[in-house]
Amino acid sequence: MLKINERRFLADLRELSLIGATAEGGVSRPALTAGDIEARQWYRGKIAEAGLDYALDGAGNQSAILWSDPPSDKRILAGSHLDSVPDGGRYDGALGLLAAFEALRTMKDHGIRPALTLEALNFTDEEGAIMGLMGSRALVGQLEAPDLERSKIAPEELSKRLEAAGISRESMLRARRDDVLAWVELHIEQGARLEDGNIDIGVVDAIVGIRSLKLTLVGEAAHAGTKPMRQRRDALWGAAQFVLRARQHVMDNYSPGVCNIGMIRAEPGAFNIVPAQVDLALEFRHGSLEEMAAMSDDLLGLLEQCAREFDLRASFEESPAVLPARMSEKVMSAIERAAAALGLSHRRMLSFAGHDSQSLAQVCPAAMFFVPSACGISHNPKEFTKDADCVNGANLMLHALLELIDGFA
Amino acid sequence: MLKINERRFLADLRELSLIGATAEGGVSRPALTAGDIEARQWYRGKIAEAGLDYALDGAGNQSAILWSDPPSDKRILAGSHLDSVPDGGRYDGALGLLAAFEALRTMKDHGIRPALTLEALNFTDEEGAIMGLMGSRALVGQLEAPDLERSKIAPEELSKRLEAAGISRESMLRARRDDVLAWVELHIEQGARLEDGNIDIGVVDAIVGIRSLKLTLVGEAAHAGTKPMRQRRDALWGAAQFVLRARQHVMDNYSPGVCNIGMIRAEPGAFNIVPAQVDLALEFRHGSLEEMAAMSDDLLGLLEQCAREFDLRASFEESPAVLPARMSEKVMSAIERAAAALGLSHRRMLSFAGHDSQSLAQVCPAAMFFVPSACGISHNPKEFTKDADCVNGANLMLHALLELIDGFA
Repeated sequence: MLKINERRFLADLRELSLIGATAEGGVSRPALTAGDIEARQWYRGKIAEAGLDYALDGAGNQSAILWSDPPSDKRILAGSHLDSVPDGGRYDGALGLLAAFEALRTMKDHGIRPALTLEALNFTDEEGAIMGLMGSRALVGQLEAPDLERSKIAPEELSKRLEAAGISRESMLRARRDDVLAWVELHIEQGARLEDGNIDIGVVDAIVGIRSLKLTLVGEAAHAGTKPMRQRRDALWGAAQFVLRARQHVMDNYSPGVCNIGMIRAEPGAFNIVPAQVDLALEFRHGSLEEMAAMSDDLLGLLEQCAREFDLRASFEESPAVLPARMSEKVMSAIERAAAALGLSHRRMLSFAGHDSQSLAQVCPAAMFFVPSACGISHNPKEFTKDADCVNGANLMLHALLELIDGFA
Repeated sequence: MLKINERRFLADLRELSLIGATAEGGVSRPALTAGDIEARQWYRGKIAEAGLDYALDGAGNQSAILWSDPPSDKRILAGSHLDSVPDGGRYDGALGLLAAFEALRTMKDHGIRPALTLEALNFTDEEGAIMGLMGSRALVGQLEAPDLERSKIAPEELSKRLEAAGISRESMLRARRDDVLAWVELHIEQGARLEDGNIDIGVVDAIVGIRSLKLTLVGEAAHAGTKPMRQRRDALWGAAQFVLRARQHVMDNYSPGVCNIGMIRAEPGAFNIVPAQVDLALEFRHGSLEEMAAMSDDLLGLLEQCAREFDLRASFEESPAVLPARMSEKVMSAIERAAAALGLSHRRMLSFAGHDSQSLAQVCPAAMFFVPSACGISHNPKEFTKDADCVNGANLMLHALLELIDGFA
């Protein structure tokens, strides 16, 4: 059975981990900063060395290309990203891109001319140093001029960074492609469900949607001595009740969906003043659009209930939601057939973190699969995936692509 | 029956409320700032006008003196304070001082030469612009040089303010007196128990002690998507449980004692990160030292319990405690006999706010009594007590002093 070149693949992974390396053993390559630019140059060099064609689109997405004969109009894309969060780990993004690249290189080594053109793609700024999923959003036509104005970095700095990658605001807005037949991505799990279950591969059936709400409970400030407790309208009491009820309700009714309250503040904020107002930052995630809507209703209902119990007023502000992205049954089946052929155990699961696959899912059949992350640690220098799991992922990428070629040709 | 001069007393109260008056109808006279200095000059003028003697001690405490004949070695003191919190109300402190002053003036008007020398005393900085209960702590010998270094204002500014009042650091440290036989203070309730119960007078049997603790719960930061909820060690879950359990436990077991959690902060503090640490500011108050100790044990026990339930670590730091001050049975009885004679309804109650009486209680029989505060509002321009209640308070001060003279002479 066809296999990737393990030694070459692991050597590349190690070499890449030296670019933007941190003292703690991780990497720091925020999009289009020096480390990321160096990694991009390294990838371009590797593509040339492998004798594959290279392409750079208007959004800075870099592709290694393995042409079909004759070159097909439509292409199958695979890959991930080379950028990292500040002080991140070696595997997030890097593993997925190198697995796709190694799959193409292996086909070329074996003289395979695929029935459809393949690309191994490095997406610009998946992690959001500038704007999350920037390259993949541009590629699917979901990036518009106002989005660039809402970038996390100053306009001048943005211009400099884009120029360093050989692109511009204008080219980004023209980066939409209509030639994508299918997409597949390998990524580390960033959770511990595979490790805990001793399973080789997680086939992602949906990437969760995310809703973020700022909740406010308003009561009445009072002297923390003279105001009898039974007469208080303490906003923190309602907030505490909400934290516990939201937790229990989501665990009981929406698992594996999750919620988090990551920020809390009481005003006016003194030892001796009963809190008049509490602000909470609520986020919740689920793989199904219908369940997310129900979660939202339930959580806001709980907020109202908690407010009533403590004689408070409740209000909320919602940030733009990220919708759940369902993965393609056709692509998932291709991955599962390939896993079975390779003897890799697998199960379906949600992805609770965002990925470029959610952009691609909007324009073509798309899916992704996970390999285990040690202890589920990610976005951290301690991020780790065993060599054997990395190799499993790359072999699965190779055979999933071969299955997809059969399925889509 | 002897009564104060209502019209004169209410006119003085009104006149005083114009000093440091704010647009909202309150007063702003933080200790030894312009407004307070003007109020102090005004009081000195009133004392002279009344033909009473004036004294200023080393701590800036001002007295109107009505001498006994012959002048007794020991004296009975009454009064309160002229300083206010920033943007405070007209009655807090001012009412108590003017009632004591009016009582002495009334005795003088009626040619009463008391068997013991009486003083109507304005204590410096009760509210703590510089240091809470500064004047009364100095008078009872509980103020030391290091306390002055921990003042809330800069050393140079402190020097300027003390000089404006005709005192110095050195004189403050020598302000201890040993001639105090008894102390009585009138104050507004700053709560609504009298108003709610339709009672004229609250006889304070203890001023609550206050303990302040900074509590910390430590769990583990995690990705708010990928970390399954059942595996999280969310510090906010434990904190919320503690907020609710502490509330219920204190209401069920320590009423009328109270607790408050006035500040809360979650770290690292982001929508998408499970809180690793939560800091809480806990304060609790009770009138009994034994009950306070039990409350402390119980609350720290609850904290441990909540930490265990959510797999967190708990710790705490305690600030210096204010001990509960029990009022003198002899002085309370004198107040109650006088109230009965005046036909005023009364009940015993705790004071949940701090007062100069707690300093005095350390060196002599001391007690205080309350008149109603409209809606319990205090430290606020809306602070209000009806004229009739003010007059009741002043008449009660007059007759309580007469009772005390009988009791202590």
